Amino acid sequence: MTNRTEIKALVFDIFGTVVDWRRGVAREAAAFLQRHAPHLDAFEFADAWRREYSPAMEEIRSGRRPYVRLDVLHRENLVKVLARSGIAAATDAEIDELNLAWHRLDPWPDSVEALNRLKRRFIIAPLSNGNIRLMVDIARRAGLPWDAILGAEVVRAYKPSPQVYTETADILGLAPAEVCLVAAHNGDLAAARRRGLSTAFVVRRTEHGPDQKTDLKAEQAWDFVVNDLNELASQLDASID
Amino acid sequence: MTNRTEIKALVFDIFGTVVDWRRGVAREAAAFLQRHAPHLDAFEFADAWRREYSPAMEEIRSGRRPYVRLDVLHRENLVKVLARSGIAAATDAEIDELNLAWHRLDPWPDSVEALNRLKRRFIIAPLSNGNIRLMVDIARRAGLPWDAILGAEVVRAYKPSPQVYTETADILGLAPAEVCLVAAHNGDLAAARRRGLSTAFVVRRTEHGPDQKTDLKAEQAWDFVVNDLNELASQLDASID
Repeated sequence: MTNRTEIKALVFDIFGTVVDWRRGVAREAAAFLQRHAPHLDAFEFADAWRREYSPAMEEIRSGRRPYVRLDVLHRENLVKVLARSGIAAATDAEIDELNLAWHRLDPWPDSVEALNRLKRRFIIAPLSNGNIRLMVDIARRAGLPWDAILGAEVVRAYKPSPQVYTETADILGLAPAEVCLVAAHNGDLAAARRRGLSTAFVVRRTEHGPDQKTDLKAEQAWDFVVNDLNELASQLDASID
Repeated sequence: MTNRTEIKALVFDIFGTVVDWRRGVAREAAAFLQRHAPHLDAFEFADAWRREYSPAMEEIRSGRRPYVRLDVLHRENLVKVLARSGIAAATDAEIDELNLAWHRLDPWPDSVEALNRLKRRFIIAPLSNGNIRLMVDIARRAGLPWDAILGAEVVRAYKPSPQVYTETADILGLAPAEVCLVAAHNGDLAAARRRGLSTAFVVRRTEHGPDQKTDLKAEQAWDFVVNDLNELASQLDASID
């Protein structure tokens, strides 16, 4: 168990942990589908797009493909989903525009307040598979007060590849245990813990919609287990004061 | 000449342009010298340390040495300057502590207000040879509201190597001309312009102290030439409204 008083930086998974990607992507897809395929459900479309996310990164994690940023993978995945949905009439400009859905995701209700609280005492940064510009656009729109944008593009590798965690701690000039990954996904936390990082699990019960089956509870004794990011801020305050 | 209305991001040189490195380093060195070499002048010590900056980076720019972050070069340079100054009694811990002088630099009086103004309409980020943690520490202490930390460590190369400018624009998802480098150094701006970036020169008359001889005026017709960063914000407002 991490000595909680040694944590110096908090790094955050973003999609699902800090922002609600499913509702945001569905909202942006709805207008597009209205024009091209009004019979399709926008949430199902968002889910289909997201299902391509991990396989696309796996090509890079496995070494079969050199690193390209997530904006590129998202667009390739979108083209696949459009073809599979029988949508052939979308222009390149429309596809580019829909791909920006991921740049316009809303934070969960607690995220902005909690990050501002946490920033007072800790360095805070995303540790996301999203690329830098994607993280910047989300942050500017939502008001997320990051100290830096870390993650996949800085390291040129995708989580859960181990170097994403170790090189991020190194960039911060910190020992792994001084860096705490905050994530709504047990798998991400397990990979971080294997590299010695501290871990905080935040339960996000509706990341995948009302019928979510995964990541509803902590699968290991993470250093922190909380229901939202304000609870994490309160626990960290209590552990140090 | 850049079409000023196309600029989407402003990236900043930091040492000398946004913060006053000479006064900050001299302030931090003064207490150290008091203990170890009270006959030495703290400003001369800061200048001697800074003179090692460019030669150390040149080893990496030339390919003779792989990339290491600036904190490492600063410490090696400090050890050289201490030896040359006849200071042999400093402990490793004291040297580490003095090396953090660069993390505690104060902004010029206009920097914080101007960056907050510029952030409303532009993505703002450092494009410094300083490493990420060094930039984060300066920003947190001084209140610099960056959207991201870009620069040498993200690209793993030192300015004025051309890829620092081109890869930074690429990371931002922008054409080079949509990115404006803001710097107090004609050489940095010349390298950025050769790669197609827009350019803003801010005159910092006392970066090198009261007898400064260099960079007192624009050596090319830069897209903007200003006396401080608030003047840049005003010119950018006027060019778009």
